[in-house]
Parts: sequence; C-alpha cells; structure tokens
Amino acid sequence: MTTNPDEPRLRPIGVIRSELASRAGAPRQGSEGAPDAWLEIDAWAADGLDGVAVGDELIVITWLHQADRDTLRVHPRSDPANPLTGVFATRSPDRPNPLGLHPVTVRAIEAGRLRVGPIEAIDGTPIVDLEPALRTPPAR
Amino acid sequence: MTTNPDEPRLRPIGVIRSELASRAGAPRQGSEGAPDAWLEIDAWAADGLDGVAVGDELIVITWLHQADRDTLRVHPRSDPANPLTGVFATRSPDRPNPLGLHPVTVRAIEAGRLRVGPIEAIDGTPIVDLEPALRTPPAR
Repeated sequence: MTTNPDEPRLRPIGVIRSELASRAGAPRQGSEGAPDAWLEIDAWAADGLDGVAVGDELIVITWLHQADRDTLRVHPRSDPANPLTGVFATRSPDRPNPLGLHPVTVRAIEAGRLRVGPIEAIDGTPIVDLEPALRTPPAR
Repeated sequence: MTTNPDEPRLRPIGVIRSELASRAGAPRQGSEGAPDAWLEIDAWAADGLDGVAVGDELIVITWLHQADRDTLRVHPRSDPANPLTGVFATRSPDRPNPLGLHPVTVRAIEAGRLRVGPIEAIDGTPIVDLEPALRTPPAR
C-alpha cells in the first residue's frame, strides 16, 4: 500500500481481550460458537461509554490487523470449491480496509471495560468504534 | 489529534454521489426519508464487487469526513432536551473514528458504480468498505 498523508487515520479506542489466540482457531462468525470477550477501552475514550447498559445490542467495529489488504477476490469460507467472489460480497477479513463488524450483547460493565459476546475477534484486535445495533433506528 | 505512524490508515475505495449536499439538510437515518445515491467505486477496487447483485442488502461503511473527532458526549439528535450521552451509545457522526454504517439495498449496477438506497450520507463522503448485511450469516 502506498502511504498518503491525506488518507484518514484510525485511532483505536481499545483492544479485544479474548481466549481466541489466532485466526486459525477462531470461528468465522460470532454466531458460530464464538466466546464472550472483554473490550478494554482506553482511558481517554471512556467518557464515550456513558449510557451503554448491560443488555444493549451493539456493533463492535474492529481493525482486523492481521488481514491482507491487497486481496480483492476470495473463495468464500476459504473453500476452493466456492467460486472466486469479490470481497465486498463477503465478510472476508482480507479486504482493502479490514474493518470487522461484530454484533454483540453487553454482558457486564466494569471500570474501563465491557464484557460482550459472542465475538469471533482474536485477542489483541484493535477496537475502533462501538455503535448501537442497526436493527432499530436509535437516537442520533 | 496526534499523528502516530502506527495508526491504521484507511484507503477509500470510492465516493458517494448524492443529491444531499450538506449535513444540515440530511436525514439522520436512511429510514428517515433519505434518497438513493450512487456509490462510485475506484477502478483499482472494482474487482471486489464481483458477486454483488441487484437486490442485495449491504452495509456501506463510510468515513464521515466532516465529523468532529474530539467529541465523546452528545445530546442525542442534537436536541438539548436529551441528556448528554456517550457517543458509543449513539450514532452521532461526531466520534473518535467517524465510521458511518449504512444498511442499503442495491438498486442497480453499472460499470464502476452501484445505485443504492436509502442512504443519508452526503455528496462527497468517502466510502471505505461494503459488506453483506448483518441480519443473516453470509459466506465468509
């Protein structure tokens, strides 16, 4: 990738702490048996959590830091029997801007961290945003 | 914002072309009367669209380039009568990493561009990703 100073930079707000250590062992979707995990939120961003409550349905947006950003076509689910498909028609982590969207439920809230799940992101994955689930139009 | 070379950089894959010219005139949610718009996809990223079809439900991820990234609390819907709330409990465009999540339906596909809607993003908003809608677990 070229580096262009005009390209927007993400500032991670925290990190995933999960029992999932590597992509090889991780489920491909939260609904496929993924565990709960902690979202450790940096102190500077903690004020942004005001109003988040246990039971809320959120979308966690992560930066899939191990992804290959030069991939534009994949065999879905890494199965060579599936025809090559554009990454924008899939949830492949390998894509030009590897943003993970993870719908989760908030299980518990402690100082500086949230317990959420299920979530297939691996330990150490940077978190870039939390937003209310898309299902129902929330306050903006 | 400090600039840290380790912060992930986004590489926009295209741009929104919409009749909505400014935040002031835009609906706050796609479901609140937003129009359809064109997604102009850069030539280098076009292979990523293989397999996207008319009628597909996608999430368009945008970079809300006019947002204030230092905001951590807002009055939801910009109404002072609503109590100050952390941005991670809202869809405020003002947030540390102003990523817009826009659920849309694909209306038409032409060379290098997709017609989608409804979408509340304004003309000129950078597009950073397209993913299948979250409702049903898609191929990965």
